[in-house]
Amino acid sequence: MRIDVLTLFPRMFEGPMGESIIGKAREKGLLELNVSNFRDFSDNKHQNVDDYPYGGGAGMLLKVQPVYDNLQKIEAASPETKKRVVLLDPAGKPFNQAMAEEFSKEEHLVFICGHYEGYDERIRSLVTDEVSLGDYVLTGGELGAMVMIDATVRLRPEVLGNKLSAQTDSHSTGLLEHPQYTRPAIFNGMEVPAVLMNGNHRLIEAWQLKESLRRTYLRRPDMLEKIELTPEMVKMLEEIKQESGSE
Amino acid sequence: MRIDVLTLFPRMFEGPMGESIIGKAREKGLLELNVSNFRDFSDNKHQNVDDYPYGGGAGMLLKVQPVYDNLQKIEAASPETKKRVVLLDPAGKPFNQAMAEEFSKEEHLVFICGHYEGYDERIRSLVTDEVSLGDYVLTGGELGAMVMIDATVRLRPEVLGNKLSAQTDSHSTGLLEHPQYTRPAIFNGMEVPAVLMNGNHRLIEAWQLKESLRRTYLRRPDMLEKIELTPEMVKMLEEIKQESGSE
Repeated sequence: MRIDVLTLFPRMFEGPMGESIIGKAREKGLLELNVSNFRDFSDNKHQNVDDYPYGGGAGMLLKVQPVYDNLQKIEAASPETKKRVVLLDPAGKPFNQAMAEEFSKEEHLVFICGHYEGYDERIRSLVTDEVSLGDYVLTGGELGAMVMIDATVRLRPEVLGNKLSAQTDSHSTGLLEHPQYTRPAIFNGMEVPAVLMNGNHRLIEAWQLKESLRRTYLRRPDMLEKIELTPEMVKMLEEIKQESGSE
Repeated sequence: MRIDVLTLFPRMFEGPMGESIIGKAREKGLLELNVSNFRDFSDNKHQNVDDYPYGGGAGMLLKVQPVYDNLQKIEAASPETKKRVVLLDPAGKPFNQAMAEEFSKEEHLVFICGHYEGYDERIRSLVTDEVSLGDYVLTGGELGAMVMIDATVRLRPEVLGNKLSAQTDSHSTGLLEHPQYTRPAIFNGMEVPAVLMNGNHRLIEAWQLKESLRRTYLRRPDMLEKIELTPEMVKMLEEIKQESGSE
């Protein structure tokens, strides 16, 4: 998979995209990541990439020309790949796991990271997707691009050592993860539930499923509406509701 | 404001937290950021911080002891501050702008970044908040912590040069931003709307409000349900619905 990033702050990518899973994916040749500074494509001697908005208003907007020229160069360097060009923007479609899965099937992704107050509207005509990381305001698109790259690349074949891992995480099963415990059995007076120590795998699995349901019911009931419940899960949920009501 | 981060990948923070607005806030002394590696607090000679889950299952869990000891050291070094301790976790409350505003009023934030399959449940007893960046799966909590730090710190007084900027962004007004344009007036045949060039500020403001409403109505109708509409906005929305219907 090839990923290009257009940014005014290429150094931001050095740490996060060089460590852990993403760093290893690059070492193994599973990800080719190119970060370019679209300031290098400015057509004026001051290397400006922003300008005042027509009609007035606070702050500066990113100009269309440097972004356009940077994209042209990427296209010229890799004419053989079909590109998915993603604009990081608060007005975009909210990013989610389904989008990460879709992105992970692409051959070549391009992320455009904004900064300052916003984009010249015509930049939107150059992209295939406008995506927002969430309903909060960030200084720029860089961290958002890194989050999307991380969520996407970890779904690629061979990137995670343990293939099971990508599938059993929260937000992949549609339920929040049940509580988990590791050694020691007692820490500061807090004990591991006895069921997890008795070696009965049928009981353990039932406990885990019920506690997943409980946590999802208590914290994110909206997630329960999006999945199909088995008869066993329906029965557990009834118990959970009774147990919560009697607390 | 003081922020501590507990992570196994401290180098990930070097680039993103040294540039742009966050880098400047640190230079100006508005933010004291300390990143610590809780592997340094491991009590065994192999410096392990993870272990197998009780009851079986794929992957490893973070142990409670190194996190506990790291937090104790932070408490000992700054007993005078009240700490808000945030665990980055997919099962947490989804992060949003209201949470960023709440965090920005705190004196001392601590972020705990997970990695591997999950946390020993008892780590949750050490924190005040469990927060999720969004409904997608990431390799670790580091990028999430950086996003939250960015969204929070930019709301602190004096951090953004232009105070107006933090208030007029998308997700602060409750509407998506209207289209904006900067020079040139024509790029590759794409023109700036005439209304923005005629200098009539009453007309410009009306156009901007209507286009904000239009973009929000078309892309994020859920956001319109959360704000109070003025009579002018109600009338504009009716026009927008008619205009969309006749397209």
